[in-house]
Amino acid sequence: MSQRRIVLARRPEGVPEEADFLMETVPLPVPGPGQVLVRTVELSLDPYVRGMLTGRDLGHPPVRPGELVPGRSIAQVADSGEWVLAETGWQEYACVSAQALRPLRVPDGVPRTAALGVLGGPGLTAYAALTRLLRPATGDTVVVSSATGAVGGAAGQLATLAGARAVAVVSGPDKCEVAVGRLGYAAAVDRLDPHWRSRLAAACPDGVHAYLHMAGAEVLIGVLERLATGGRVALVGLPEHANEVGSPSVLPAGLLMRTRATVHGFVVYDHEDLRPESERELGALLASGRLVLLEDVSEGLTSAPAAFARLMSGRNVGKAVVRVSAADTPDL
Amino acid sequence: MSQRRIVLARRPEGVPEEADFLMETVPLPVPGPGQVLVRTVELSLDPYVRGMLTGRDLGHPPVRPGELVPGRSIAQVADSGEWVLAETGWQEYACVSAQALRPLRVPDGVPRTAALGVLGGPGLTAYAALTRLLRPATGDTVVVSSATGAVGGAAGQLATLAGARAVAVVSGPDKCEVAVGRLGYAAAVDRLDPHWRSRLAAACPDGVHAYLHMAGAEVLIGVLERLATGGRVALVGLPEHANEVGSPSVLPAGLLMRTRATVHGFVVYDHEDLRPESERELGALLASGRLVLLEDVSEGLTSAPAAFARLMSGRNVGKAVVRVSAADTPDL
Repeated sequence: MSQRRIVLARRPEGVPEEADFLMETVPLPVPGPGQVLVRTVELSLDPYVRGMLTGRDLGHPPVRPGELVPGRSIAQVADSGEWVLAETGWQEYACVSAQALRPLRVPDGVPRTAALGVLGGPGLTAYAALTRLLRPATGDTVVVSSATGAVGGAAGQLATLAGARAVAVVSGPDKCEVAVGRLGYAAAVDRLDPHWRSRLAAACPDGVHAYLHMAGAEVLIGVLERLATGGRVALVGLPEHANEVGSPSVLPAGLLMRTRATVHGFVVYDHEDLRPESERELGALLASGRLVLLEDVSEGLTSAPAAFARLMSGRNVGKAVVRVSAADTPDL
Repeated sequence: MSQRRIVLARRPEGVPEEADFLMETVPLPVPGPGQVLVRTVELSLDPYVRGMLTGRDLGHPPVRPGELVPGRSIAQVADSGEWVLAETGWQEYACVSAQALRPLRVPDGVPRTAALGVLGGPGLTAYAALTRLLRPATGDTVVVSSATGAVGGAAGQLATLAGARAVAVVSGPDKCEVAVGRLGYAAAVDRLDPHWRSRLAAACPDGVHAYLHMAGAEVLIGVLERLATGGRVALVGLPEHANEVGSPSVLPAGLLMRTRATVHGFVVYDHEDLRPESERELGALLASGRLVLLEDVSEGLTSAPAAFARLMSGRNVGKAVVRVSAADTPDL
């Protein structure tokens, strides 16, 4: 009995490529004391994993070539069929500590993969950044970059639900359509358009009251230049930092002083205490249809490297998920 | 009957020089409707005036060559001898709107010039930045740059009074002595020392919990690199911005994210509502001797240009004041 798994082939340079990963066929792992065997059903692809590959994610040692690529999944316990959330890595089966398993809890009528996005870390990120740091008020203009991604898609909708005017900054006209048509942004700006700064200005006539940043250095400066007096900024993601490419993003001190801005560095690990509230609130919004779930699903474990490369170059639309196996596949 | 006044000779480039100013002898001004004649006794020199000379101060049109240099003073109404605070500019006598005068109020036993520093705008700046933004807690390490200046001197003492460990960043060993010996800082670092960064690290073994920034780009980066997790930064003054020299100061986004920092742009005009409380609290501290007043007094109006150049190159120690005339000089 064997399974397939994906290991790191080499340390990625810049945006990861398919060739950075290697598919292996290995014997099925055997559970040790306190462990259970789980079958990976849906694997979550997340930007923080890019940092883990080179030791840049907070609190994790770097993954070395030849080692399993880490990742969280929706999985089924092989013995019982119980649905769980588990740190499986990129493989079809994993032996995980029974204590580290979390039961999968999703409201009726909501797809279980929501647990990886809106009801998981990305949703908590959006919820905490908005409720604790950006606090949009009615009539505020809230700009979200990577606005159709796992975090951005939830954040934009939450801002709109809070009575603010959400404006998306995305790459490409297709994502502009998704942002306005599916996620309810009041306006969307394509940052690949050479005139994107003036389009942003037109989309934010009162300036930017709050900005959730998850993009590159140029987008950061461009949005800061439209900041309203007293504007709030949450630095939630720095793709060029994760990918180790380009010059480091900076914020001009004079502009922050002149606009009396408040800038917050954000790391979601600090906001675990908010997870129950976030899951409850976002779960209710999903169940009632007031929050739209947007997913970018790839089929089969073999698709993970390309899907991860797409995610890390910002080409995904919605939460990146890999369907590794069908539910209730006849076992082993 | 004539008086002396100082006008702008030319637009300053970089740090102001004496040659940027011109002393004139002009006829004594005659009060118009609603105006009163006041005699300047002590003239306040403040960094914001540098910005006014080139239209970079918020909300003021630029001063043009040939025009009076602006400035606030402690003055006496010529008719009545009443002590007032007035916008006199750099001159011996001024006609000012009676409505714009503020009666001079200083607690018993406190020098009246405190009204220009600790009980004026600089004190309000320190008080608002500390109580509203930096909020030092017992045991926090609070770094103050320009730590022996009008704002910094008050801020460091307030941080210490709040139970924090105040660390000064200043230029030169003399100021280090003043910081520790007169203002009660726990430690002082000379930023002209090539090893100042490692000295700062040694002075802040737990990192920097709060930072009041009023220095150049290199100091900003150096202190940010010592920021503790969750550190707070108040951008209160940018001398290189005021002086229009050097490259603009920037803050690295990756560092702010990693440390979960909060950075606040600060402009004192936003905190006028706090002035009564600030005057009351700081006045009580001065009167009881718990707060030390540090002043850099120059004698005579003719000394103003050189004193202003000293202030803007950071060579002053304490609040910069020019004694323009003796109190109760026989009149006119």
